[in-house]
Amino acid sequence: MSLFSVTISPRFYETDALGHINNASIAAWFEVARITFMESLGDAGAGSTMSWVLASVQIDFIAETFYGSDVIATVTGAAAGNSSLTILCEMSQGGKLTVRGTAVLVYLDTATKTPLRIPDGLRDQLPATDPKA
Amino acid sequence: MSLFSVTISPRFYETDALGHINNASIAAWFEVARITFMESLGDAGAGSTMSWVLASVQIDFIAETFYGSDVIATVTGAAAGNSSLTILCEMSQGGKLTVRGTAVLVYLDTATKTPLRIPDGLRDQLPATDPKA
Amino acid sequence: MSLFSVTISPRFYETDALGHINNASIAAWFEVARITFMESLGDAGAGSTMSWVLASVQIDFIAETFYGSDVIATVTGAAAGNSSLTILCEMSQGGKLTVRGTAVLVYLDTATKTPLRIPDGLRDQLPATDPKA
Amino acid sequence: MSLFSVTISPRFYETDALGHINNASIAAWFEVARITFMESLGDAGAGSTMSWVLASVQIDFIAETFYGSDVIATVTGAAAGNSSLTILCEMSQGGKLTVRGTAVLVYLDTATKTPLRIPDGLRDQLPATDPKA
Repeated sequence: MSLFSVTISPRFYETDALGHINNASIAAWFEVARITFMESLGDAGAGSTMSWVLASVQIDFIAETFYGSDVIATVTGAAAGNSSLTILCEMSQGGKLTVRGTAVLVYLDTATKTPLRIPDGLRDQLPATDPKA
Repeated sequence: MSLFSVTISPRFYETDALGHINNASIAAWFEVARITFMESLGDAGAGSTMSWVLASVQIDFIAETFYGSDVIATVTGAAAGNSSLTILCEMSQGGKLTVRGTAVLVYLDTATKTPLRIPDGLRDQLPATDPKA
Repeated sequence: MSLFSVTISPRFYETDALGHINNASIAAWFEVARITFMESLGDAGAGSTMSWVLASVQIDFIAETFYGSDVIATVTGAAAGNSSLTILCEMSQGGKLTVRGTAVLVYLDTATKTPLRIPDGLRDQLPATDPKA
Repeated sequence: MSLFSVTISPRFYETDALGHINNASIAAWFEVARITFMESLGDAGAGSTMSWVLASVQIDFIAETFYGSDVIATVTGAAAGNSSLTILCEMSQGGKLTVRGTAVLVYLDTATKTPLRIPDGLRDQLPATDPKA
C-alpha cells in the first residue's frame, strides 16, 4: 500500500508541566491515526468501524514531542489474523522519529460480542507485507 | 441545603507547559462537579441525568491551580427556572478561591428534544435561595 | 480584519456516551482557536503568547457537535482594553452554528504578574470594530 | 511490599460514543497510578519524580470500563534495572479485572538527559520480587 498518514497539530493543552506533549495525549493521537486509517479503507472499513474493539496498545516514546510544529502519524503496517488486526504506527516531528506504536484491534459481532473473521473486502485493502508485530 | 462538594485531585497530565492546570481541564472538572451534584439529588436527579443538556458555561479563572494538592469544588447555588437549571460552583485549593463557574442546564424530553418543566421532585431538593446567575 | 478561522477535525475520543462531542472538548478547542489567532498576529503576538493569562471564558452550546465532519472555529471579534483582550469565537459544523464563545485574556508581566498595557503593535492588528462582549 | 493502589472515579467526559471509557483516558489513568506510586516512595521518589522519563507503555484492555463505579488501579510490581524501572499495574472495576499495563521509566540526569543509575534509597523501597515484564 502507499503509506497512510495523518497530520496532527499539537495543541497547547496537550503539553504538560515538563514542557512537552504528555504521553496520554500521544495515546489519544494514536487513536486518531488508527481510526482515520480504518475509515480510509472505504465502505468495508468505515461501515464497520464501530465493530472494532481495541485489545491492546503499545507505545515507545523515542523522543520528546513539542508544541509548535506538526506531527506526521504514519501507519507503517497492518496485518490481519483471523479476527485481529495489528496496526503499526510511527510519528515524527520535524523529520525526527518521536513515537512508535502497535495496536491490536479485534473485529466483533457487536450484538453477541464474539470475534468474527475479518471480511475479505477489508483484508484485500491491507498491505501485502506483514508487519513484525 | 448543606453545600455539596466534591474533591478533585489534580492529575499531572492536566497541567500544561505554563506549569499550572490548563483551563480546559478546569472546564472538565466543572462537569464532574455538576454531574456529581445532580446525581446526589437522588432518584429524581440520577434517573434523569441524561435528560439534561448543557446550554452554557461561564468560568472565571481567579487564581492559578497547581498539581500537588486537592481541589474542593463546591456547588454554591442551584436555581430552577421552568426548564432551565443554573448551577453555581466555586473551586478552591489550599483554602484559596481559584475558580468560579456558572452553568445553565436545560431539562429535555430526550425523544422530542423539546424543553420540559423540571419535575417538582427535583425542585424540592434544590436550595431555597436563588443564586444571582 | 479578514476573519481568522481554524479547522478542527473532531476526534473520536472527544465524544462522550451521549454520542456527541463533550463540552470539555469544546472548551479545549476554544483554546486552540484563541492561541492560533494570537500566533497569527505575528511577532507581537507570537512572542508574547506566554504573557497572556486567561481570565474568563464563556461558552454557549447552541447545537450539538458530532464526530465525522470538520468544525470551523472563527474569531469574529477581538477588542483590546488597557490590559485585557476580549476574543469572540463562533464554531460551525456543516454550515450550522454550534458554539459561540467569549474569552477574556489579560496581558501580564510574567515576572511580576502585574497587568501591562497591551502593546500598540498588537493593537494595530486587531479588528477596528469592537465586539459587544 | 504491600500493594499500592489508587482509586479513580471515572468521569463522564472520559466516556466515548461507544458508551464506555475511552482507551486514551485509561492511558491517562495509568499515568495517575504510576506517578502516585512514585510519590508514595517518599523523598527518594518524590524529590526525583521529575527525573523520570516514560520510555514505553503497554496496555491490555481486558474488559470494558464504564462510568458509574470506581476503578482500583494497583501497582502489582516494580522492578529496577540499572537506570530503568518497569512498573506493572492492574485496574479493576466491581471486582473484575479490566486493564493490565506495563510502563518502563528511565531515570535521567535532567541537565544532561543521560540515564543515571537508580539511587539505592529508591531501590530499597521496591518490591523484592521481580515482575515478568
